[in-house]
Amino acid sequence: MRIALALKGLDYKAVPVALQDGEHLEAEYRTVNPQGLVPVYSDAQILLSQSLAIIEYLDETHPQPPLLPATPLERARARQFALLVASDVQPLTGLRVMSYLRDACRLDVAARRGWFNHWLMEGLDALELWLTAAERGTRYCVSDEPSIADVCLVPQLAVARRSGIDVEEFPRLAAVEARCLALPAFIAAGAAPPAPPS
Amino acid sequence: MRIALALKGLDYKAVPVALQDGEHLEAEYRTVNPQGLVPVYSDAQILLSQSLAIIEYLDETHPQPPLLPATPLERARARQFALLVASDVQPLTGLRVMSYLRDACRLDVAARRGWFNHWLMEGLDALELWLTAAERGTRYCVSDEPSIADVCLVPQLAVARRSGIDVEEFPRLAAVEARCLALPAFIAAGAAPPAPPS
Repeated sequence: MRIALALKGLDYKAVPVALQDGEHLEAEYRTVNPQGLVPVYSDAQILLSQSLAIIEYLDETHPQPPLLPATPLERARARQFALLVASDVQPLTGLRVMSYLRDACRLDVAARRGWFNHWLMEGLDALELWLTAAERGTRYCVSDEPSIADVCLVPQLAVARRSGIDVEEFPRLAAVEARCLALPAFIAAGAAPPAPPS
Repeated sequence: MRIALALKGLDYKAVPVALQDGEHLEAEYRTVNPQGLVPVYSDAQILLSQSLAIIEYLDETHPQPPLLPATPLERARARQFALLVASDVQPLTGLRVMSYLRDACRLDVAARRGWFNHWLMEGLDALELWLTAAERGTRYCVSDEPSIADVCLVPQLAVARRSGIDVEEFPRLAAVEARCLALPAFIAAGAAPPAPPS
């Protein structure tokens, strides 16, 4: 979401929520999002959760530069790619799920790490395969301009790197990431440069 | 997706995939969707996975009747609601996750049922609260016409009923569902009428 805001050149005030301290579960944050999930976006018109809904809203209210390609076909592909991250990876590896696996399912550290890596790798495999099958030679995931697909991909790859996954095993994803991380908006949004392999 | 196709009045050929037999994991289906997930939509132009990407594509290529409201604000709310289902409930309760909990995490039936009901109830709570907070008196979730939000809600409530959850505990959701199930498109798509309480 910060990358989308930066690509749009929008000023915003970031309010960090300390997930590790459970701040997202406290009453004060629940008045913002009853679900206790991040991120939430708010302006004079709306208070909105769900990253993809926020990005689409930003794109409709601030059309330049577009975060969705021009044709229905390419928009469909961009949304499909974004949903591969936002529906197939992120929900399964988020903090609330990892906590439930620990507290309710009583999985030990190794089993939880196995879960996390399994769904992350499944997702990265699917994304790499998607780019391979597309084989369109575009600069970014779906076109020659960064889109909602890239905005979702780059933070997911940052998570993967922090988890010790060798992103270079996914050469097409890594190539798109490198191009994104050279863009001022991605730098301004704090999309981390590749960490040294651990 | 079948509801969206029916609302648009589109003819289509449904190709059932026998998930319980693992047909979605076989090589033949993998040529359609390498991820092995359903549903997949295909026409002369595109082969597309991810329900929400498919519904948005149908809406862009067949604009009448619209499945997204007219204003950016209402479209954002419709997408937010749809994502509450498609990202926060569906991925956590789908077959591939339930199988992983059984085979890799070795959770017994009771623990798996606990998992399933936990995320489903969390989701229904969030959706009911969302409608309560909106309190706009619209006929359907976000407006007086069915939208992508209703198209996602009704099948999720059908899953809940089949799982023995008393949907009447969520009066706003149940009221929207009842209005949807009275519409010819929802009937034609086989959105099941409420089953007797089990």
